[in-house]
Parts: sequence; C-alpha cells; structure tokens
Amino acid sequence: MLTKSKLKYIQSLGHKKPRDEAGVFIAEGPKLLNELLETAPETVLEVFALKEWIDEHKKILTKNTVEVITEKELERISGLATPNNVVAIVKKMNTTGPVSAKGKVTLVLDTIQDPGNLGTIIRTADWFGVTQIVCSANCADLYNSKVVQATMGSIIRVKVFYEDIHKWLSQQQEVPIYAAMLEGEDMTSLKKVKEGIILIGNESRGISDELINLATVKVTISGKGSAESLNAAVATGILLSQLV
Amino acid sequence: MLTKSKLKYIQSLGHKKPRDEAGVFIAEGPKLLNELLETAPETVLEVFALKEWIDEHKKILTKNTVEVITEKELERISGLATPNNVVAIVKKMNTTGPVSAKGKVTLVLDTIQDPGNLGTIIRTADWFGVTQIVCSANCADLYNSKVVQATMGSIIRVKVFYEDIHKWLSQQQEVPIYAAMLEGEDMTSLKKVKEGIILIGNESRGISDELINLATVKVTISGKGSAESLNAAVATGILLSQLV
Repeated sequence: MLTKSKLKYIQSLGHKKPRDEAGVFIAEGPKLLNELLETAPETVLEVFALKEWIDEHKKILTKNTVEVITEKELERISGLATPNNVVAIVKKMNTTGPVSAKGKVTLVLDTIQDPGNLGTIIRTADWFGVTQIVCSANCADLYNSKVVQATMGSIIRVKVFYEDIHKWLSQQQEVPIYAAMLEGEDMTSLKKVKEGIILIGNESRGISDELINLATVKVTISGKGSAESLNAAVATGILLSQLV
Repeated sequence: MLTKSKLKYIQSLGHKKPRDEAGVFIAEGPKLLNELLETAPETVLEVFALKEWIDEHKKILTKNTVEVITEKELERISGLATPNNVVAIVKKMNTTGPVSAKGKVTLVLDTIQDPGNLGTIIRTADWFGVTQIVCSANCADLYNSKVVQATMGSIIRVKVFYEDIHKWLSQQQEVPIYAAMLEGEDMTSLKKVKEGIILIGNESRGISDELINLATVKVTISGKGSAESLNAAVATGILLSQLV
C-alpha cells in the first residue's frame, strides 16, 4: 500500500519544480516502461504497478524497487485519462553539456509550448533518425507528463537540450540553418540535408525575428488550400520527410 | 447577464447527444468567429462575448443574436484552458448526403479517436487543398470542442462525412485506395495522386483488416530511426505533402 507521503511525492512530480529538484520524472504505461527497463534499467528508480503486471515482468524488474498497488491507487497517481498498469519514478536523462551541429541534422525548436506538440515532434524526429533536438528555454518541459506520453518512448532515444538558442545558433558556424516559414523557398526545390539545422517556430507566432536573421535558407511547405498554417508537429514531420 | 438555463444549455453542448439533438455546436475565439461571421454569418445563431469584442465587431454582427457577458461568465461557458473573448452557438455544417471519390482526392479516416488528431488532420487536409474527408462512425465527433479548436478554422472549409467506410469504400469503383501502413511501398516511389482515396488508420491499431483488403496500394513513410510509428496527424501531413 502506498504511504500518504509517497502518494504526495508522486503527485508533486506532476510539477516542474519538484521534478527538477529531485532530478526525476514520471513514466507511465507498459510500453514505455518495457523500453526503459530494457534499455536503461538503472534509471527506473521506483515502480508502482498492479500485481498482474509485476508478475508478468518479474524477470526484467531485478534491479528496481517495486511496489504492488491497487487499481484505485493507480488512478490516484496516474496523470493519464486511462491509467495503464504501471507508473514509475525515473531518473532524468542527461541533457546538459554542449552539443555541436557539425556533421548531423539537428532540430531546433523556438518556443514550442504545447506539450503534445513537443512530444510528437520528438517522436517524429526519432522516426527520421534525428537524434538531437535543441529547445529554447521557454519550450514545454521535456518531463511534463503529456510530453513524455506523446513521445511514445522516443524520449529514451532522442537527446533533448534546453539552451539559449540564439546564442547556440550563432555558435554553429558553417552549418546551414533552414528556418520553417510561411514564405520562403519551396522545400521540394532543396537538396537533402546531411548536415544542417532545421528551425521550427512557435505554434502561433512562428520563429522570432532575431532567429530568422540567423537563417541560411527560409523554407516553406507549399499548400494549395486555404488553411493559414500547419500544426507545428505536422510541419516538422513534412520537413523532415522531405529534407532528411 | 446569462440566465441560468442559458448557461446550462451552453454547457450541455459540450456533450455529443445534446449537440446532435439541437443541430448546433460551440465555436470559440476571435479567429474562428471572424471566419464564421465572414463566410457563413447565418450559421452563427447566438454570440456571447466580452463588451470590447462586441464593440469591435458591431459591423459584422448585424444578423446575429448577441449577448454581452462578463469575464467570469466567459470562463464558465468556455471549453478552453484560456477563454478568449467570445463563445458562440453555431449551426452544424451540412454533412449528410452521398459523396463520391471520383475526380478528386479524398481522405478516409478509420477510427481516429483523439479529438486533437482529428482536428489537426482536418487543418492539414485544408492546407493541401483536400476538401473532403470521410470518417468511420467511431471517429471522434467533428463538433467536439477540441476537434473544432484544433481545426483552426478549417472546419468551415473541409467537408467531413461520417459513413460506414467499408461500405462506402466498396462503392468507389475504379478510384485507387492508398492505405497508410507501416509496411508497404515507399511513398516516394509513387506518382502524384489526382484522383484517389488516402486511408489513415487508428492511432494505435492502424487500419482494420477488412479495410486493408480493399486497398489498391499499401503505402509507407520510410524512416531510418527507431520510433515504432508516427502520430496519425503527422503521417497524414507527410502523405498529403508527398502525394497530392
């Protein structure tokens, strides 16, 4: 049975500050937990799960603190609309340290504030083999439960950094910066990118002016309909599909 | 001031059954309302808005029942996390009647259940000039507030029908059906589609077997990373960008 203080602690991890202080986040659901336990078992600090799930996963839970909980307890600690068997406290991935854009494709996100969009962008980057994302400090928090959920496990594989992106972009000399804009060169006229930065802007305001000034190429996704813009995650998917 | 019964009525429209019975839905925010009032003012039955907003829009509100409300009242009737000036009761678009796939590109959705995904797919279709979507009966409801919001106004332009899609697809003779799958022909090897049906499956289960059997071409989006799949709206955007 969950103690009251444990319950409170888990619930507190729904907020950024307690997550940052403890250096952990909440991971939920069998799919994500299986991936975490297979690829980085030492990061899974505490597992709270229904008895059936624990019984099925005994073999891979050897290194972890495990606690059996009831359906009711699961509901109280889950951030999902439909709680799914298991909730765990997981050590944050290491996302500090300098990263260079040399020799690879990097996705840079300017003020992506919707957690679902951020998570979906991470998942999409993973699909196309882009393993490095640099976020502006005011993007949604990587460890927000909705972000974690929307990544569908890709949070384990894609490295996500938070930086002063203006400063960081200014330092990436000789690496071309492709800024996704409503007006620019049609993406289909561009060559495939082997080394480059793809810059995606805020859901409603786009890329901020000071960053646009750093762009090597302004690139656009031509449409022939009447929508004013595309969803940021959809636009990212289309650009990666075309350019990478 | 909003009467108690009006308040209750507006709140009830957050649910499908009352919406269906009244043949109306809730539209929110200046952007959507402006588009509705410009393109189909007669469908905007009742407008509830802050005084400033009404003052600014007097010229286009000539045909509508308008009521001034307070910030507090707005919060009570809004379905948004951040209520935005105006809420309106709007007549549903006409989405009955047979549609044919002849001579155009049609998007067909099998069990897209996430309202945000459905709305984003409608917005994406609008961007690429696809004006007709046929949904299976168990897709999210077009008039769910999260769907309406995610369409970003495209709900006005794209015709969305709910049908028995197995039956409907069987009737579309000689129109090729492109089924989006994890395994199939690489989309980049296909010619542009001028007349065809693009079939998108459920977020976790994909396209149901009985529908796969109707496919002319199984088409896939090649990735080189490790994600198991793409978000349904992102996949739709990539396919439309490539094929249309």
